[in-house]
Amino acid sequence: MAETALPALVEALRRLPGVGVKSASRMAYHLLQHDREGAVRLAHALTHAVEGVRHCSLCHTFTEEAVCPTCRDPRRDRAKLCVVETPADQAAVERTQAYAGLYFVLMGRLSPLDGIGPRDIGLAKLFERATGGEVQEVILATNFTAEGEATAHVIGEALKQRGLQVTRLARGVPAGSELEYVDLGTIAHALVDRRSS
Amino acid sequence: MAETALPALVEALRRLPGVGVKSASRMAYHLLQHDREGAVRLAHALTHAVEGVRHCSLCHTFTEEAVCPTCRDPRRDRAKLCVVETPADQAAVERTQAYAGLYFVLMGRLSPLDGIGPRDIGLAKLFERATGGEVQEVILATNFTAEGEATAHVIGEALKQRGLQVTRLARGVPAGSELEYVDLGTIAHALVDRRSS
Repeated sequence: MAETALPALVEALRRLPGVGVKSASRMAYHLLQHDREGAVRLAHALTHAVEGVRHCSLCHTFTEEAVCPTCRDPRRDRAKLCVVETPADQAAVERTQAYAGLYFVLMGRLSPLDGIGPRDIGLAKLFERATGGEVQEVILATNFTAEGEATAHVIGEALKQRGLQVTRLARGVPAGSELEYVDLGTIAHALVDRRSS
Repeated sequence: MAETALPALVEALRRLPGVGVKSASRMAYHLLQHDREGAVRLAHALTHAVEGVRHCSLCHTFTEEAVCPTCRDPRRDRAKLCVVETPADQAAVERTQAYAGLYFVLMGRLSPLDGIGPRDIGLAKLFERATGGEVQEVILATNFTAEGEATAHVIGEALKQRGLQVTRLARGVPAGSELEYVDLGTIAHALVDRRSS
């Protein structure tokens, strides 16, 4: 009989982002040799997440309910809507404890080269929500990469046409950094966007 | 209700070797957003492997049978036994197509600092098999690291006392390399172990 369980496990682990065939083999050996309990736990967690996790009907982030806890939170400021690319970006903003509004999670970014268009990141839904009457300011917090900037531009233009106040996270010198080690582009932006102190 | 499925999945992925909390989050998001089929497949592969994969009763490698295909292969030279640390190392030796003997897979290496002793790498079983009468030469192919060398030394001394022929993989300059870029220790070993040509 051909041995299939181990090769199938290596192949399934390879589908994880950032995992090549050597890492996948090492993971499979590790689980089978040292952590079978961890393998069982991972199998259950995968099944449980695939069955239970869906998208929030309001903000599109992952949730196990129809509406996520953040969108349901009555203490949140419903006049502000922060647009981020991923749940990880949302978590980064949340960690600052400097924002008490709501979110819209694109679950991606516009990327024509990868075939990711407005429909894939739920722009119609975003526009519908932003123009529903409650939202007064949309804060664009997509990444400061080429694709993130382009996504912010497209969303910003569309929402401004609809009469909404649109803002973008400030670009500038990161907190705690020394100018000597900050890249040119960042310093140039910080100069252009300088503020009175 | 608290949301637990996604954090549990991230936590389970973190237990994989080489995966930190950021990678685990990225993997979880990727699976849930882009590859739920891959997540289901991985869950099945894990369950299947944990249930089906055990150790070969002769060589200790992973197998789904009592004895692995290599140990069962009648074309293999039963007089030679190659000792390697892991199934990955065994696969590396196999890929050379330069060896037709059998293997003993330690599934680890002696590492007193990590609490890995002779019992954890099945040395009693190895000695029993090596001295069973069939084996004439034991080829030590543990890694050329401090722990691999120490493991080879311990096994070699024990088997030589039992009257067996023990050899070690040759140390030297890797094929295709330029001396200028080879480290000192390797060149020194290659000088000491020089052979007539």
